[in-house]
Amino acid sequence: MPVNLPVPQAEHLLPIDGVTLGIAEAQIKKPQRKDLLVMRLGDRARVAGVFTLNRFCAAPVIVAKEHLAAGKPIRALLVNTGNANAGTGEDGLARTRRSCAELAGLLGCAAEQILPFSTGVIMEPLPIERIVASLPACVADLRGDNWLSAAQAIMTTDIVAKALSKQIRLGGATVTITGIAKGSGMIHPNMATMLGYIATDARISQTLLDAALRHAAGRSFNRITVDGDTSTNDSFLLIASNEAAMAEIDDAASREYAAFRDAVTEVATALAQAIVRDGEGATKFISIQVNGGANEQECSQVAYAIAHSPLVKTAFFASDPNLGRIQAAIGYAGIADLDVSRIQLYLGDVLVSENGGRAANYREEDGQRVMREAEITVRVELNRGTACTTVWTCDFSYDYVKINAEYRS
Amino acid sequence: MPVNLPVPQAEHLLPIDGVTLGIAEAQIKKPQRKDLLVMRLGDRARVAGVFTLNRFCAAPVIVAKEHLAAGKPIRALLVNTGNANAGTGEDGLARTRRSCAELAGLLGCAAEQILPFSTGVIMEPLPIERIVASLPACVADLRGDNWLSAAQAIMTTDIVAKALSKQIRLGGATVTITGIAKGSGMIHPNMATMLGYIATDARISQTLLDAALRHAAGRSFNRITVDGDTSTNDSFLLIASNEAAMAEIDDAASREYAAFRDAVTEVATALAQAIVRDGEGATKFISIQVNGGANEQECSQVAYAIAHSPLVKTAFFASDPNLGRIQAAIGYAGIADLDVSRIQLYLGDVLVSENGGRAANYREEDGQRVMREAEITVRVELNRGTACTTVWTCDFSYDYVKINAEYRS
Repeated sequence: MPVNLPVPQAEHLLPIDGVTLGIAEAQIKKPQRKDLLVMRLGDRARVAGVFTLNRFCAAPVIVAKEHLAAGKPIRALLVNTGNANAGTGEDGLARTRRSCAELAGLLGCAAEQILPFSTGVIMEPLPIERIVASLPACVADLRGDNWLSAAQAIMTTDIVAKALSKQIRLGGATVTITGIAKGSGMIHPNMATMLGYIATDARISQTLLDAALRHAAGRSFNRITVDGDTSTNDSFLLIASNEAAMAEIDDAASREYAAFRDAVTEVATALAQAIVRDGEGATKFISIQVNGGANEQECSQVAYAIAHSPLVKTAFFASDPNLGRIQAAIGYAGIADLDVSRIQLYLGDVLVSENGGRAANYREEDGQRVMREAEITVRVELNRGTACTTVWTCDFSYDYVKINAEYRS
Repeated sequence: MPVNLPVPQAEHLLPIDGVTLGIAEAQIKKPQRKDLLVMRLGDRARVAGVFTLNRFCAAPVIVAKEHLAAGKPIRALLVNTGNANAGTGEDGLARTRRSCAELAGLLGCAAEQILPFSTGVIMEPLPIERIVASLPACVADLRGDNWLSAAQAIMTTDIVAKALSKQIRLGGATVTITGIAKGSGMIHPNMATMLGYIATDARISQTLLDAALRHAAGRSFNRITVDGDTSTNDSFLLIASNEAAMAEIDDAASREYAAFRDAVTEVATALAQAIVRDGEGATKFISIQVNGGANEQECSQVAYAIAHSPLVKTAFFASDPNLGRIQAAIGYAGIADLDVSRIQLYLGDVLVSENGGRAANYREEDGQRVMREAEITVRVELNRGTACTTVWTCDFSYDYVKINAEYRS
C-alpha cells in the first residue's frame, strides 16, 4: 500500500482558467477504464516541456518535441494509458501523428498544435482506431473541473491518483497551480514511466516558463530518477494559460518570478514524492540526504548508489538495520578519492558510523527503532565540501516482484 | 534452486602439490558450521591477486594488499565466513593483523606472509578470539584433499559449494588446476561479495602469473560484476605452487603460456558462472551477448544495462516475453549517438525487433517458448562496429527479496 499518500479529493483540485479536460474509456488495454485524456488550452496558453533522454524514446515523445519546436501555439495535450507506443518504429510514429491529426480536426487547429503522450506496455502497436473512435467523447467531456478524472485516466500500475492544487498571491492576483502526475515502478526509477502536467493561470513569459520548468524538474522529478530522464516516455509539462489578472512575469530577478518558481517547484515536489510513496510494492518512504560534498554531482552519485541498492532496499523492507550495506553503497558510488574515515552516517537522528567504522555509542536497538518507521531519513556527511542533495526512494518488497512479474498477465 | 549447478563431488577435486587446506568450525556466526579455512602454500609458491575497488573496502582487503606488496613469499591464506570485517575502521584492521600474526606463529613465518580474507555481514566486529582459538584446529587439519570442505567453509548464502579441477599437458608434464569460489547476491553484482581461489602446480614466472590472473578475471568474474570489483570484500587469487616437473613458463608469446592462461580462464569462467547459477533466488541463467559495438566499453554498458534492470529480470522470472523492457534498457545504456533503427534484438534464436520496432515475423508464442527455458541467451546486434562482449546474470524472484530481507535474522 502507498506510504502516507491520501487519495486526492475532487473538491481540493482547483480549475485553471483557460484549461479544460475531457476523459474517455477507449478500451486501449482494458474495458471500463478511463484511459484517454484531452487537455484543451486557451488561446493565450504557453507550454514548456522536458522529455526522456532514452535513445529508444517513444513515438509520442519524438512527435511532442517536434510540435513544441515548430513554435505554433499548443492547443491541446492528448494522453493515453495502456500502451506506451515505444519501440514501435515508423509505424508507431505514423499512429501518433494520426491521433494528433484527428484531434486537431475536432478542435479546429493544426496537428502541430497537439502534444501527444503515451504510457503503458512497450513495443506493442498503439490501438489507434480505438483512440480515434473515443476522441469525440473526450471533446464532449471537456470541463474545467475534471482534474481528478484526468489524474485517474493516466494511471498504469499506480494505486492512488496523484493530483494537487496550490494558490498564491502574485502581482495583486490570486494565481492557481494544479498538477497531476503518474508513475509506477520506482525501484530502478530510470525505467519508471513518469508523466507530470502542471497548469497555472499565471501570466509569464515563455523564457521564464521554461526556466521555472527546469528549476522545478531538477528539484522534484529528477530527484527520483537517475541518469537523467531515461525511461522511454518520461515527460513533464508546465502550462501557463496566461488568464490571470496580473502583469506578465518577465524579469528573472523579480520577487514574482521567484514566488511563482518556488510554488511550481512545491507542487512538482509533492507530485514526485507521491510517485515514490506509491512506488511499486512500497512500504517505506525514504529520504536520502547527502551533505558536505565537493560538488552536487558527487552528492547525487552517493545518494543514488544508496537509493538503487537492492540490498539496502530489502533491508529497509525487513526493518533490519543492516547498515553496512549503506556503507558499501557509499564506497562504490564512484568517488575515487573518497576518505571513508571522514564520513558520518546517520539513520534518522541516530549516528550509525564514523571514523570508517561503527559509531562508539551506536546501539542496534536505536537503529531498529528508526528502521521500523514508515518514513526514514538516511543522512550522509561526506565532510569534503559544502554541496548537498536529497533524493527520495522507497523500499523493495515481495510485491515489487509480484507487480512486475505479472504486469502484462 | 540453483540453475543447472550440480553439487561438486570430492573425488573430482584434485589436490595440488604444495597446497594443503585445513578447515575448522570457529562459531564465527553460527554453531556447527565450517567457517574458517587455512590454505598453506609450499616454499616455491607464487601468488597473484586482484581486489575490490570499493572505497569502504574491508580490513582484510587492505591488509592482504599490503602483504602482497611487501614482497615476501606468501605462506598461507586465511579465510573466514560469517563476518566481512568491512566498515569496521581501525579496530577491524587490528583484528585482521592479529589473526595473521597468530597464524604466522603457528606456521613459523612472518605475519606479512599471510593473506587474510573475510566474507559475511558488514560492519560488525570480527570475533577474533573465536578465530584465534580455532586456528590450531585448522592447522591440524591441513591436507591436500580438503578442497570440497574448503569450498564449503567459504559459503555465505550460497546453496551449492563451487569447486572444480582441470588437468592439461604442459611442457611435458600433467598440470593440475583446482579452484573454489563463493558468491551470493547477483542481482546488483557490485554488491555481491565474491571470493575466488585458483591453485595450480604449474611452474610460471610471477609476471606471467599476474598476467594470467588479469586475463582470466576480465573474462570471468568481471563479466558478472559492474563498475569494476566494487563489493567491500571481492578478491580473486591465483596461486602457482611451482611443483610440477616442467620448465618455468616465462615467455608471454609461448604456446605454453597461452595454454595455461586459457585453462585458468576456463576454470575461472566456470566458477563465475556457478556464482550466477546460484544467484540469490535464481530460477534462470541468462547470457547477454552484445555484438557489433564501436568498442568493448559500449558493449559492456548495453549488456549491464540489460543485466541490471529489475524490470527485465522480473520479466525473465515470470517467463514473460515483455521485450520492450530490454529495448528500453538498451536505450538508456548511455550511448549518446545510438541509432536504434539499426539494432537487432534476438531472444535465443528468435529475432524480436529491428528497425526500431517489433520484427515483422515475430510471434509472441516464439518469444514465450524461449522465455520458458532455464538457460536463455539475449543477443543484441548494435551494427556500429566489430567489438563484442558477453555477461552472465540471473532472473529476479520473490526469493531474492526473501533471502536479502532475512539475511541477518
